[in-house]
Amino acid sequence: MSDSVPITIIPITGLPEITPGDPIGTMIAEQIDRQAEGLQAGDIVVVTHKIVSKAEGQLVELETVSPSPLAAAFASRHGKDARQVEVVLRESRRIVRMDRGHIISETRQRFICANAGVDASNVESGIVTLLPRDPDASARRIREALADGREDFGVIITDSFGRPWRNGIVNVAIGVSGIAPLADYRGQHDPSGHELRSTVLAVADELASAAELVMHKLQAVPVAVIRGYQWQVTCEPGTGQDLVMPADRDLFR
Amino acid sequence: MSDSVPITIIPITGLPEITPGDPIGTMIAEQIDRQAEGLQAGDIVVVTHKIVSKAEGQLVELETVSPSPLAAAFASRHGKDARQVEVVLRESRRIVRMDRGHIISETRQRFICANAGVDASNVESGIVTLLPRDPDASARRIREALADGREDFGVIITDSFGRPWRNGIVNVAIGVSGIAPLADYRGQHDPSGHELRSTVLAVADELASAAELVMHKLQAVPVAVIRGYQWQVTCEPGTGQDLVMPADRDLFR
Repeated sequence: MSDSVPITIIPITGLPEITPGDPIGTMIAEQIDRQAEGLQAGDIVVVTHKIVSKAEGQLVELETVSPSPLAAAFASRHGKDARQVEVVLRESRRIVRMDRGHIISETRQRFICANAGVDASNVESGIVTLLPRDPDASARRIREALADGREDFGVIITDSFGRPWRNGIVNVAIGVSGIAPLADYRGQHDPSGHELRSTVLAVADELASAAELVMHKLQAVPVAVIRGYQWQVTCEPGTGQDLVMPADRDLFR
Repeated sequence: MSDSVPITIIPITGLPEITPGDPIGTMIAEQIDRQAEGLQAGDIVVVTHKIVSKAEGQLVELETVSPSPLAAAFASRHGKDARQVEVVLRESRRIVRMDRGHIISETRQRFICANAGVDASNVESGIVTLLPRDPDASARRIREALADGREDFGVIITDSFGRPWRNGIVNVAIGVSGIAPLADYRGQHDPSGHELRSTVLAVADELASAAELVMHKLQAVPVAVIRGYQWQVTCEPGTGQDLVMPADRDLFR
């Protein structure tokens, strides 16, 4: 038998346009108080990185950027803004693919994704947003602002990444605080008695994807609260970096 | 402002051990009646492929399998069961990587994943499960069994796939019926007036991941109902194959 209970995903709205220096942790806390009856035991607060990047001033005005020859050549070949390509290259530590108009690279934060997380959507024209410099630290700060004496909740910061082999982007976790991003079933036994040997679930990514379902791209829903997810509050919490595959195990570097 | 409303993910339990020929659509319908007050407008019913494969007899007894020399060599080098490796090769139409004990291949169903979806967990010892032969057809049949005159709901069949570059597996959609697996925002404008140029969300994969949060690997929760997700019932429904990246756009074949 199962002790599973329903999960609720609550959209949190009402945040104003975020500008550098805004105390978004406190601002999110206020809206959770209003719209979700305050934080509750086991809640996971999922925050789209866009508002975190804005609050942290991770913004670049394109008119301040001088494209390198590589950026200029790639941009002109593929009809892109050379300054934005330059920002992508600056945010990258290693290029995985630079082909057919796409740049897939390893970011400063060690994620492998398209355009190094540099994005022109949901921000003023002429400005691009970068990923938070250290998304785990950002998650930690938001968690501290939300805590109010509580320990039994988690914070996840998300971005939408494409995937090899599959169409479309999905929300994933880039920063994590307070919860274990991976649920490791290895060594446990399924109901048939079979030992699970390679089952490590990226639950933080699944939580990020679940939250996206109430966020929608065109609406102002930058935060969601996931309530009722049965996780082990006592397990060792981890970071968003735990979700990055180590180089020596990656067949697709 | 947002018209987002909360989403609920309801675990559906109480299915017996499934055997070939079981009418799982009807069996799931009975449990949804009991545990979710019946199907409601906009519901997404998410079904783990394992029970679908069992009901469809997509099972192989390993003692009936004679490994090829390739399977035997790979298995002996990496401490694996040569017969299971042979089944993986038979379920594959193309090998993407066969390295460090891993087989990443394109399955008969055109998904690229580890071990061609062949799995020894949650099934009797000596038997492995395959993916459903045509997961979209399976989703369609389950949807027909659930419909009872209703049109405004979707069915998704899932498996857990690993991903390049990221640790852990996540639930994804391999079969879809009644809903559009991709939400295409291209050409629409964000609140800042910026035209979204490459935003196609793989919502069926996000729904699959969300459902996994109530499923857990060690418990008997093979089905979840996602209620309250705001999707366009009127949009053109699609299939799980829409989630497969076309070869000419795939940088990582």
